[in-house]
Amino acid sequence: MNTGQGSEIRDAAVTVMRRCGSLANISEEPGLIVRPYGSQAMNETNDIVAGWMGEAGMSTRRDAIGNLIGRYEGTGEKTFVIGSHLDTVRDAGNYDGILGVMVALACVQQLHNRGERLPFSVEVVAFADEEGLRFGTTFLGSSVYAGAFEEELLSLEDHEGVTLREAVRAFGGDPDALESDGRRGGDLRGYLEVHIEQGPMLEQEDLPVGVVSAISGQSRVGVGFTGEAGHAGTVPMGSRRDALCAAAEFVVDVEHAARREPGSVATVGEISSLPGASNVIPGEAKLSLDVRHPEDAARERLRDHLEARAREIAACRGCESEWRVRQQTGAVAMDAELCALLERAVEETGTPATRLSSGAGHDAMQVAVLAPVAMLFVRCERGISHNPAESVDTDDVGAAIEVVRNLLSLVSRRVEPEGAQEGE
Amino acid sequence: MNTGQGSEIRDAAVTVMRRCGSLANISEEPGLIVRPYGSQAMNETNDIVAGWMGEAGMSTRRDAIGNLIGRYEGTGEKTFVIGSHLDTVRDAGNYDGILGVMVALACVQQLHNRGERLPFSVEVVAFADEEGLRFGTTFLGSSVYAGAFEEELLSLEDHEGVTLREAVRAFGGDPDALESDGRRGGDLRGYLEVHIEQGPMLEQEDLPVGVVSAISGQSRVGVGFTGEAGHAGTVPMGSRRDALCAAAEFVVDVEHAARREPGSVATVGEISSLPGASNVIPGEAKLSLDVRHPEDAARERLRDHLEARAREIAACRGCESEWRVRQQTGAVAMDAELCALLERAVEETGTPATRLSSGAGHDAMQVAVLAPVAMLFVRCERGISHNPAESVDTDDVGAAIEVVRNLLSLVSRRVEPEGAQEGE
Repeated sequence: MNTGQGSEIRDAAVTVMRRCGSLANISEEPGLIVRPYGSQAMNETNDIVAGWMGEAGMSTRRDAIGNLIGRYEGTGEKTFVIGSHLDTVRDAGNYDGILGVMVALACVQQLHNRGERLPFSVEVVAFADEEGLRFGTTFLGSSVYAGAFEEELLSLEDHEGVTLREAVRAFGGDPDALESDGRRGGDLRGYLEVHIEQGPMLEQEDLPVGVVSAISGQSRVGVGFTGEAGHAGTVPMGSRRDALCAAAEFVVDVEHAARREPGSVATVGEISSLPGASNVIPGEAKLSLDVRHPEDAARERLRDHLEARAREIAACRGCESEWRVRQQTGAVAMDAELCALLERAVEETGTPATRLSSGAGHDAMQVAVLAPVAMLFVRCERGISHNPAESVDTDDVGAAIEVVRNLLSLVSRRVEPEGAQEGE
Repeated sequence: MNTGQGSEIRDAAVTVMRRCGSLANISEEPGLIVRPYGSQAMNETNDIVAGWMGEAGMSTRRDAIGNLIGRYEGTGEKTFVIGSHLDTVRDAGNYDGILGVMVALACVQQLHNRGERLPFSVEVVAFADEEGLRFGTTFLGSSVYAGAFEEELLSLEDHEGVTLREAVRAFGGDPDALESDGRRGGDLRGYLEVHIEQGPMLEQEDLPVGVVSAISGQSRVGVGFTGEAGHAGTVPMGSRRDALCAAAEFVVDVEHAARREPGSVATVGEISSLPGASNVIPGEAKLSLDVRHPEDAARERLRDHLEARAREIAACRGCESEWRVRQQTGAVAMDAELCALLERAVEETGTPATRLSSGAGHDAMQVAVLAPVAMLFVRCERGISHNPAESVDTDDVGAAIEVVRNLLSLVSRRVEPEGAQEGE
């Protein structure tokens, strides 16, 4: 890169970092980053980001679920989309999702600053719900965008009994349009998502960015055990049907089983016991299970094994088990042609292009039904994410901005001849 | 018993059952029985029971923590106390605690109906907090009564951050008088507590009531594990420091260790994970531990073993453990002379007197520092307690009323000669 370009990219990266830090202050809980779908914090965040989109020369709109979409007009009919999400888990870091939107904004801002129009329009999409913190399901935002929303989800309730239908309406959206408000794919040239890696590979290879080859599929299950509540002091150990002991045995099993299945991860993130008093044997226990693998067959094998184990553990203890699949997503391979262009865009920055798979789910999985998709990972410290300790380096963010600019140029060169042909 | 006495006792037992059912409707949560210390439900319950005390010819007062005390005057200086508690666990049954107060009331009501004065006064004490649902500690009511309240507990907080000090004041009590408002023991002839067995022994022996020989000691501990939160999809199984996996391993260990130590019971009733989202590896997990044994040395051995196991489990996983003893109570033997009288009172009903130990803690443990104590257990179906399925038989309640009447007569015969001697 020449010096002028280097300083422009450096400045853009500093702006991205500052904006990620500034959005971190907008939260439902003071002192933590918590931005669930439909919250006041999400509303404020969308407002601020819409302002930045306007500054970058984009027109903006919100779709039926509240995804924020900025459009920078090009000279041709095609559209290239760059997106990620602005919602967070509870006690999140600054970058998961947010970084991808801010990098996209930075690239469009540079086009706008130069008054440059590409042979295709660029849309920046900020999805309103990827993490699923509030309703226990994920990709709500991108599933609506991709026209894959399932109406039955509207009756899901959050912890306070508010349904998704009510939450969409309160967020200014239209619950009845969620199924029909998907983006049409006809004009889409491709979709790129920039995201922190959330894993240790790039750090191990000492690379600022990497090209994603595939995204693991995932199964999310609500698991319950029912035994019999009783007095903690008087029911002999041999006469108990302790639902929490069953759940604990299951949690230990989940860890062991995932360790035995190479490439898999399995996690119990939530657990509760009922009635939930220190001197009462739990009569019920509930937990969440999350199973992922880059190959669907391996994930399904692990999931089925754990379902059988839940049944066995319950049966051995005179308890009952419940197994409710809340969400299931197959593994998604990235588009071969777009991946190859992305690798070239990385190599043009003077860095080797490495490929890696993603254990985390991303909105790209949903958008893949509409358009060719690709993802660029940015190195993050110690692979930590979903944690206030999330950390990325400004230079790595600069590298990501440069790669996206390179990719837009490479796509332009592919689109223009087509456009010329169309004009013939 | 003669027929008139039989029908009087039968009527009294029916009244006791009806009153237990009626108090079951007074709760903080509709559809469940939930009466934590200091709640509106406890206030209403105290008001109703105070009315019944008045009807039975008793004067009433509330002490500094809100224990309700009814006094039926006798002809001499001594006082015999019959007590139990009116608070409950969450999702409780009709009888735990409440039955003991209602049986005491029934016996005094019979004295009052006949205009009969005993050579000692009878006090009925309804303790305001035995279960410790709200502040995670137990015997709050009887510890104040026994002059054993520890001031440092005043800063304990409930789940909403309300301190015990504030709760006592809101309940109409005086937090600054809790240490000094204990009952003086000088005039006390003895203390009797009638309680459901909460275990299977009396049912197995086909007996309506039994005499308690000793109450198990208990240790209640708050156990915490701290690891590192992370993304459920991207942190490989081998790189995790999952606090909930550590906690689950510990819960399984608690069960195994208690099974290996004969006579002991150990329970994890509460558990939670932080941040508590389905797609985040828990960075923290907290749980409650309750360990009981009729012999203190065995309980301490089990407790120390589990503390060491918590440390080991944490260390093996690169996590940290926290071990905070919230409460500890030694085993308490019942008074030998009062127990012998109680056995005779049982035998006078024509039923063999059996002795059994109590795995549950009871207010009698606290009152034992003031006066000779004894306890009468009433058979309950399948030993179930701390559960809406708690069930006792009206005939068994009648047997308990008859035993208490017999005991009051036996104590009268012992007190009167002394009173006569004093008068000489």
